[in-house]
Amino acid sequence: MFEALLGNGLVLKKIIESIKELVTEVNFEVTSEAISLQAMDASHVALVVLILRASEFEEYRCDRPQTLGVSITNLAKLLKIAGNDDSIILRAEDEAHVLTLVFTGKNNEKMCEFNLNLITLDSEHLGIPEQNYSAEIIMSSLEYARICRELTQVTDTLNLNVDKECVRFAVSGDIGAGSITMRANISDKAEEKMVLNVLEPVSMAFALRYLNLFNKASCLSEEVSLSLSPEVPVVLKFSFTLGELRYFLAPKISEDS
Amino acid sequence: MFEALLGNGLVLKKIIESIKELVTEVNFEVTSEAISLQAMDASHVALVVLILRASEFEEYRCDRPQTLGVSITNLAKLLKIAGNDDSIILRAEDEAHVLTLVFTGKNNEKMCEFNLNLITLDSEHLGIPEQNYSAEIIMSSLEYARICRELTQVTDTLNLNVDKECVRFAVSGDIGAGSITMRANISDKAEEKMVLNVLEPVSMAFALRYLNLFNKASCLSEEVSLSLSPEVPVVLKFSFTLGELRYFLAPKISEDS
Amino acid sequence: MFEALLGNGLVLKKIIESIKELVTEVNFEVTSEAISLQAMDASHVALVVLILRASEFEEYRCDRPQTLGVSITNLAKLLKIAGNDDSIILRAEDEAHVLTLVFTGKNNEKMCEFNLNLITLDSEHLGIPEQNYSAEIIMSSLEYARICRELTQVTDTLNLNVDKECVRFAVSGDIGAGSITMRANISDKAEEKMVLNVLEPVSMAFALRYLNLFNKASCLSEEVSLSLSPEVPVVLKFSFTLGELRYFLAPKISEDS
Repeated sequence: MFEALLGNGLVLKKIIESIKELVTEVNFEVTSEAISLQAMDASHVALVVLILRASEFEEYRCDRPQTLGVSITNLAKLLKIAGNDDSIILRAEDEAHVLTLVFTGKNNEKMCEFNLNLITLDSEHLGIPEQNYSAEIIMSSLEYARICRELTQVTDTLNLNVDKECVRFAVSGDIGAGSITMRANISDKAEEKMVLNVLEPVSMAFALRYLNLFNKASCLSEEVSLSLSPEVPVVLKFSFTLGELRYFLAPKISEDS
Repeated sequence: MFEALLGNGLVLKKIIESIKELVTEVNFEVTSEAISLQAMDASHVALVVLILRASEFEEYRCDRPQTLGVSITNLAKLLKIAGNDDSIILRAEDEAHVLTLVFTGKNNEKMCEFNLNLITLDSEHLGIPEQNYSAEIIMSSLEYARICRELTQVTDTLNLNVDKECVRFAVSGDIGAGSITMRANISDKAEEKMVLNVLEPVSMAFALRYLNLFNKASCLSEEVSLSLSPEVPVVLKFSFTLGELRYFLAPKISEDS
Repeated sequence: MFEALLGNGLVLKKIIESIKELVTEVNFEVTSEAISLQAMDASHVALVVLILRASEFEEYRCDRPQTLGVSITNLAKLLKIAGNDDSIILRAEDEAHVLTLVFTGKNNEKMCEFNLNLITLDSEHLGIPEQNYSAEIIMSSLEYARICRELTQVTDTLNLNVDKECVRFAVSGDIGAGSITMRANISDKAEEKMVLNVLEPVSMAFALRYLNLFNKASCLSEEVSLSLSPEVPVVLKFSFTLGELRYFLAPKISEDS
């Protein structure tokens, strides 16, 4: 028996909205410690890793570890039925064929209960090696999302250059070239804050299409951190009370090399 | 000569918007008592019945009964020209070829007058038999519209089960199954109110596509009433100061039978 | 060297948005007096004339006159990157191959600099003859835009009739016919104001499609003026602190003649 009660259902709605365009079918692993998932996108370029800590749920019980194969597309449809203020219960019997979702609003006269059919998926759990990164950028998730979205106007590749003083988001395309440069600072305004933890300068290129997909998670967290090392995937991390959502993306090979 | 002055033109704009996707050409019947229309949708599954009471217009004159054949599509286009605060005059000479619409805003320096070409339509006035219904549901029109819209995510058929204590909106599809249950209550909050007048429990199925089309009328009235009896069409009624708009929809035959 | 600093970058964003659907590639002429452009739309029916006065820029320097061939489509993309509160610097070296745009927000830790590739275009500078017009209409740009947009519901041609007392916006199509009539008045409310300077009554017809495209400029100015004389193009003028934007449109030949 697995059962978890989430007082603030909205965060779960946001999480699923944040990943549904990237991964359509996933295995959720439920244990006594956490609900987690790890999935590659269809083109095997990006990896999504989600952890929701058991201790942060209002109620949580997991008698034995289970793998729950879920269509994210269908789960998103059911979660749309939940009100933004609803609490959400997730429940699965041992060896379950359905995941039960119960939505409870402030209006006690109304009860919503849905059974989502589970599916069987090949497991592809990847060991993610511990990595020390050359540079870490911590900034406003909204500001970062805005920059990525706007630079997509110019071209499809973002060149990210970071040193101790500043980070440069540069683009170059048929219409021209340019960059947005932000200096390290500790602003009172979350939107302007820019923390740079840099061991050595890094210059890497990424597909803006994926970065924009990841940025759907900017509704989950005021800040985003980007961890960079040459020739290894960048990690974008969105942290929130319930846990964290990380995206991994392999760099584009520089056109110069 | 027919002439009717409506101080609050917005309600007429909303009514026509509420039916234009269901019926495209209709006969308006104008008499000294009311303006009315009755029309089947193109697939002859749903019936729309509208009554606007003469007594609720600021001014009203109808020398002799007339049938005015109107393209709802074109009438909607002209009504879009009227401001939300405008008063609207409807006018037709005896044996008219055009319906004249005059929009008058608070700005007296501006006058809008349009002649809508009338069309000749076969009349298909149906006698709607008086019916005693087994169950009546009165609830928030917005809440009801929300439930129908959301359950459309799961499947295309709504199973409606009502008894003295509660009403259950149930769905079952490829992705899973579930229901929203609401208990009878007299809440102060219009959104939560649920009045159930039930002689005997009813269980019926309806096409969500049509229910969603009907729900465009939820802007006309805070409440909607659903009248149900086995094997006869459900009636959805939206009442407002000027009159009422009713939709009739035949039930789907249960897959069990 | 050409360099111009615009404290209020938003106005430039609006100007380019106002013309980008009409003209895609243009020559900007920069001189010590002004930045100007003059361009026909692709079908050579409408003419756009823009003047931005040097004296209204916060800083302005133009060592020698230059012609800068610009893709409006691409310039619009880059200007989307500028925040609404940003100041904008435009810069070009003598015999430049790129136009440099620098966006500076209130946040000094952030710098945006883009180089837009210039293009070589045939020059088609037209001498616009001085013209005394028979009638001039000055009215709210938003109200005028609303009227054009709404009448497009009925048909694609606007008949404009103006005399000393009033202006009539009339349409006639398959669905019917009608008009919006506004009387001359000097209302305190900008939205209702209607100034008519009429030497002799004028009756002309124009393609609503173009009038609607011009009306994207209604965000630039509270008022629009229309200058009319029989058989010559109407001029729509939108004035703002920085300069003015004029559109010329040839009348449609009356179907009677």
